[in-house]
Amino acid sequence: MNITRLALDAMGGDSAPEIVIKGADAAKAKNPSLEFVFVGDAAQIKPFLSRSNNLKNASIVQADDKVESDENVSQAVRKGKNTSMWKAIEEVKEGRCDAVVSAGNTGALMAMSKLQLRPMEGVTRPAIATFLPTAQRQVCMLDLGANIECDAENLVQFGIMGAAFSRSILDIQTPSIGLLNVGEEDQKGHNYLREAADILSDPSNEMNYQGFVEGTDITKGAVDVVVTDGFTGNVALKTAEGTAILVTDLLKKAFKESLLTRIAYLLARAALMRMRKRLDPRVHNGAVFLGLNGIAVKSHGGTDAIGYASAINVAASLVEHGFMPDVQKALKKYTSQNQAENARKEA
Amino acid sequence: MNITRLALDAMGGDSAPEIVIKGADAAKAKNPSLEFVFVGDAAQIKPFLSRSNNLKNASIVQADDKVESDENVSQAVRKGKNTSMWKAIEEVKEGRCDAVVSAGNTGALMAMSKLQLRPMEGVTRPAIATFLPTAQRQVCMLDLGANIECDAENLVQFGIMGAAFSRSILDIQTPSIGLLNVGEEDQKGHNYLREAADILSDPSNEMNYQGFVEGTDITKGAVDVVVTDGFTGNVALKTAEGTAILVTDLLKKAFKESLLTRIAYLLARAALMRMRKRLDPRVHNGAVFLGLNGIAVKSHGGTDAIGYASAINVAASLVEHGFMPDVQKALKKYTSQNQAENARKEA
Repeated sequence: MNITRLALDAMGGDSAPEIVIKGADAAKAKNPSLEFVFVGDAAQIKPFLSRSNNLKNASIVQADDKVESDENVSQAVRKGKNTSMWKAIEEVKEGRCDAVVSAGNTGALMAMSKLQLRPMEGVTRPAIATFLPTAQRQVCMLDLGANIECDAENLVQFGIMGAAFSRSILDIQTPSIGLLNVGEEDQKGHNYLREAADILSDPSNEMNYQGFVEGTDITKGAVDVVVTDGFTGNVALKTAEGTAILVTDLLKKAFKESLLTRIAYLLARAALMRMRKRLDPRVHNGAVFLGLNGIAVKSHGGTDAIGYASAINVAASLVEHGFMPDVQKALKKYTSQNQAENARKEA
Repeated sequence: MNITRLALDAMGGDSAPEIVIKGADAAKAKNPSLEFVFVGDAAQIKPFLSRSNNLKNASIVQADDKVESDENVSQAVRKGKNTSMWKAIEEVKEGRCDAVVSAGNTGALMAMSKLQLRPMEGVTRPAIATFLPTAQRQVCMLDLGANIECDAENLVQFGIMGAAFSRSILDIQTPSIGLLNVGEEDQKGHNYLREAADILSDPSNEMNYQGFVEGTDITKGAVDVVVTDGFTGNVALKTAEGTAILVTDLLKKAFKESLLTRIAYLLARAALMRMRKRLDPRVHNGAVFLGLNGIAVKSHGGTDAIGYASAINVAASLVEHGFMPDVQKALKKYTSQNQAENARKEA
């Protein structure tokens, strides 16, 4: 059995270390090939481990300090090396673990991961990616906020990394890629979108590029990977979350209106629960910081054990499906293709 | 009784002229002070007018040509002056009507409106605005696609125009304004957002500015007016639409799962219908092209008579609540305040 070793920032998240350990316990129950290193305050971690079902002998790496969720990034990085977040990432950097998961401060996790793991060869800008529910299979969207301003080359690389992410998580051979824009016509949007479209649609790059997609196409599942800049992606993700919350809140209110609607709710309960599960943000928990020499997964700070287990599963899938060699190969192929193309143009 | 005269592009929209006339008929039934000028092919319009309840004596302005929904903007503008869209806008330009409504080609409507009505004094960029449902009262969002790139000054003007729009439609005295960003902290996002925030929060400008808002805040109703560039606004609006469609489609499927869920649907039907009405895109139909010397309202091309009547109501509300003098006054005040401020700084 191939063992997948994950470093968990045991002190990151609103209910750490409890949900970190409970989430790991649940993940281990389903996937016995997982092994965890809990990084944080041993005195706080041990009682939860001893009460766990599957983690009685898990390793602990002591860290005396932690990054606060509201801490400013430069401050967090300065206090750095004694924090559970820094030391958890270090486990990956030093090759002792295959991936790191943290529910802590997103900005600090990005900064510390970038400092320690460094961008992969050929990557100008690492990006944050996650999966969203759609009418079809899930859709991968990136960047979700790591890069406020992007150029065409950044977007092309996001497409390559997003496609590799989809291959690992959803097991799709050649995921289709779309560029998020304000219309499907070629002349729409920012100049860098048209430049990126030219590169992505170049047949020699062998990418399954499907053209521009609009906001409505994200949840339709029109493509497997939606590529956009970090500003637009962040707004789109949060707008989708907000809209889903609005609709489900109105639905809850509707079912509470009268005795009849309460009975209706009971009758439809199982079906509604299945629907809710499909939209459950906990199931889709686990944003990945793509493009580094190592796998760093961010869990929602306010998630519960089920949500944390989902983030662990994302990290484990990336390791087990060989995401790192896959994306390295794809980037290398694109880079050499690109160099050949440029050489040809200059000749 | 003050008469509100609206020019309707009778040939614009997927089911024109039928839904245009049926929508006007429904609007007139509720608001007898409305008068319509139907612009288009009289031979096609007359049969629907004669079958209407309230429009038997409505005026027709003959237009021999029309703009196709998929026509490219420059082509539409070239063929221009004989189209129903151009002539409908002309009714406003020449002062014969108070506002124009069209369900035709958005790009052509923007271009033709701008050419004929011209930007208002003090407005550098007109913007498209609409209202969205929230957990509280409706929220006004702009720009939705007229301006792909924006600077701080554009965004400030969008705030002023959006606030006047909210005052007219929702009857709020001092609507609160938020700038859409990727976080609420001051240092987040594009530089021009921070510059716009500085101007909007300047007490001498007397705007009810509430700070940066995120995608999740739109449907929460955290502020009355959400200001953003046309690229981000377009993506956010369409992502919200797509998400609402996904959730309601999953809900429909859930209610069709079994006999029990079908019974549940029947029991909860009235409550679900009320919920659906609240989210109904037809109720929120009517995007306004703000910042011109005249009111131009865009209806969804694929809407029905109920949706078209909503777009007519938006146009009528803007006229009846004196949107034009209101926004002119607000822009003038800001401009003179701004000049005084600049003079003070230079002194």
